[in-house]
Amino acid sequence: MRSLRVAVAGLGIVGSETVRLLRSRRDCLRRRIGAPIELAAVCDRRAPERARRLGLPASVRRLTDPRRLPALRDVDVFVELLGGLDEPRRLALACLRAGRCVVTANKRLLARCWDELRGARARGGGRLWFEASVAGAVPVLRAIESSLAGDRITAVHGILNGTANFMLSRMEEGLSPEAALRRARKLGLAEKDPSLDLDGRDAADKVSVLASLVTGAWLDPRRIPTRGIRELDARDIAFAGEVLGRRARLLGMVRLDGPAGRVEACVSPFLVPREHPLAAVRDEFNAVMVRAASAGELMFYGKGAGAGPAASAVLGDIVAAGREILSGKAAPPAPPAAPAPRPAAADCAFYLRLSALDRPGVLCAITSKLSRFGVSIATIHQPATGGRDACVMITTHPAKPEIFGRALRAILALPAVSRRHAVMRLLS
Amino acid sequence: MRSLRVAVAGLGIVGSETVRLLRSRRDCLRRRIGAPIELAAVCDRRAPERARRLGLPASVRRLTDPRRLPALRDVDVFVELLGGLDEPRRLALACLRAGRCVVTANKRLLARCWDELRGARARGGGRLWFEASVAGAVPVLRAIESSLAGDRITAVHGILNGTANFMLSRMEEGLSPEAALRRARKLGLAEKDPSLDLDGRDAADKVSVLASLVTGAWLDPRRIPTRGIRELDARDIAFAGEVLGRRARLLGMVRLDGPAGRVEACVSPFLVPREHPLAAVRDEFNAVMVRAASAGELMFYGKGAGAGPAASAVLGDIVAAGREILSGKAAPPAPPAAPAPRPAAADCAFYLRLSALDRPGVLCAITSKLSRFGVSIATIHQPATGGRDACVMITTHPAKPEIFGRALRAILALPAVSRRHAVMRLLS
Repeated sequence: MRSLRVAVAGLGIVGSETVRLLRSRRDCLRRRIGAPIELAAVCDRRAPERARRLGLPASVRRLTDPRRLPALRDVDVFVELLGGLDEPRRLALACLRAGRCVVTANKRLLARCWDELRGARARGGGRLWFEASVAGAVPVLRAIESSLAGDRITAVHGILNGTANFMLSRMEEGLSPEAALRRARKLGLAEKDPSLDLDGRDAADKVSVLASLVTGAWLDPRRIPTRGIRELDARDIAFAGEVLGRRARLLGMVRLDGPAGRVEACVSPFLVPREHPLAAVRDEFNAVMVRAASAGELMFYGKGAGAGPAASAVLGDIVAAGREILSGKAAPPAPPAAPAPRPAAADCAFYLRLSALDRPGVLCAITSKLSRFGVSIATIHQPATGGRDACVMITTHPAKPEIFGRALRAILALPAVSRRHAVMRLLS
Repeated sequence: MRSLRVAVAGLGIVGSETVRLLRSRRDCLRRRIGAPIELAAVCDRRAPERARRLGLPASVRRLTDPRRLPALRDVDVFVELLGGLDEPRRLALACLRAGRCVVTANKRLLARCWDELRGARARGGGRLWFEASVAGAVPVLRAIESSLAGDRITAVHGILNGTANFMLSRMEEGLSPEAALRRARKLGLAEKDPSLDLDGRDAADKVSVLASLVTGAWLDPRRIPTRGIRELDARDIAFAGEVLGRRARLLGMVRLDGPAGRVEACVSPFLVPREHPLAAVRDEFNAVMVRAASAGELMFYGKGAGAGPAASAVLGDIVAAGREILSGKAAPPAPPAAPAPRPAAADCAFYLRLSALDRPGVLCAITSKLSRFGVSIATIHQPATGGRDACVMITTHPAKPEIFGRALRAILALPAVSRRHAVMRLLS
């Protein structure tokens, strides 16, 4: 009986766990695939040492240069867990152009190189699997791509960054943002570059993958309006809970606006009603709500990070790829590129916290800026502070994000208003 | 270009919606499948009339006898939405034995005929898709079968009957069970046979499908210990909320106990901690939690019933089937039957509400029965009633379900204790 031959590139935390599970679950995987699975090669800068630590037999080839991987003619599935962007890109493109099969967990690769990868698939007939790239083991990509393939998806909202959600959960318990970040670091949850978590860039990559999958046309993450949680502090969280009955959640959002192909995407802290399912998602969990015309609202929930969940998703992709390869099926053609979606921006209610000099006329100057841009105020609060600076919390009626942004810039240009501020959207 | 030819058997609510969507989403489905989709035939006892009402063109064949369907040689996918058991069984078996492809939403068919269907597939090489049979459009079956295929699933807990969950939600708001059922009926949520919803039989069929899929070996629903919500009333719901901080949810459960192949399955009302994600699932929504060794805890949530969600799942299966058929792939072999799982029954804490004559010695008789069977009491409450009968609420420490059942029978045999009682399990 033919076996399924797998090469794993990158023996970091996820790669090592994948290799470990490929071996310890060998019998179970054989039953699921219908053929034995064989680890043919590993590739890592420190491959000899790491392979030894993993107790790999001598029959498993050890490579240190991923550029040599595509030359392995007898490998069926290349698992790309290298990290970074350049090496993964080179490996994935080489494999896809040669009609080979690649499994990856690299959201950045997908977010940045979607069209290139699609092109390589279309030319070479290769196949790309990437369930682990968004929300870890939560199988939301397969649901969109396969289970909901007969439906019309109208919106995706997701808690896509576990670190930010963990921090917001701790801030709800009274921790300062700095202390919450330290706690996340201590638990090994945070990315090395804190900006990926704090400024929403990691979530923007995942929104890009989701949007590209849903619409069929690449959405460059650099084009997604992205706001993180860096500017939020205890006042915002407390005000949201006590006055508005809402919780702050960093959401990535894709909204398809009718059949005309208009698409809105953003990453932003949202104020979510307390009874909303996303408000119940705490700690480092991820959750993705998908709204579809027939299915209604679906939610997928689970751990979005960590070696176990990522390896679980990678193994699921390997099994799916293996079934396809061993059934002798021609890889399905790469889907045609859809026309680039036209950007839309639905009206949205906003929360705005400002710091301003506590003197006559300042509040009037702020509100008149909003009114000049046609942004209508829903609530306004100025708690007693006792200091020189007043803190003003404003919620607006729904407004165009673009218009709100212009009004905000005008307000921040007022001499009596500090540049330090916080903005959240209200989830309706 | 070859088209994918579909026949729909059964033009009830789900069948009609499926036909409607197959036509209105034609362009979208063509892009997803990579070929045009064509409605080749419909079959229904009132096919001529219903086809006319759906505005089907004359090219769509109208059959009134499902036994004539397998003779249609040019049909690629048979969609079975007939309802009942005998006709669906005959149709599915005939198609599978002839190597054809069947999509069904019929949980009863799967729960009752799993092994027969598997045998027909193994002999004939046909293919069976059934995402819509459990939890409507919530793609939990595909997640188990595909996304988690590389993981080891250890437990599945689910709110699988939307009607029961709707009733429990209304009872939390103070409605009587009868009023809650009337409300569900009015909204078209209830099954014609109320016992399917109230006694957990519908949920048991779904647990059977989940267990068979997870273990690979058929679990006959008639072997699943099944208790419904019929005996619960306002006192239980209030006590659960006010004293225990829990909510009542009718759960179907499958638990795999280690690698030895022991399996526990049941349907029972459970008392779920208020902070648990399943406690937040209200109204007619379904939710399934899947615990896997690597992925951790995943939850899938959405509408489990209704024409839209069911048709969405059916269309997803048609697209998946179509991709497989058009890629010229040999259908994957039917998975081998796993050895029948050995039943296990983990210890579980119980809630018990009894009615007893309010006279000396009765409480002592009840507690001594529990103690004789070694069931240890955690809490006991006897609120003032003022009447002739006392109401006693007991929670136990974890006990073997079998032992608890024997103790319960002994208690109910006491002359001073009414047969009317309520039992729930406590979710740990």
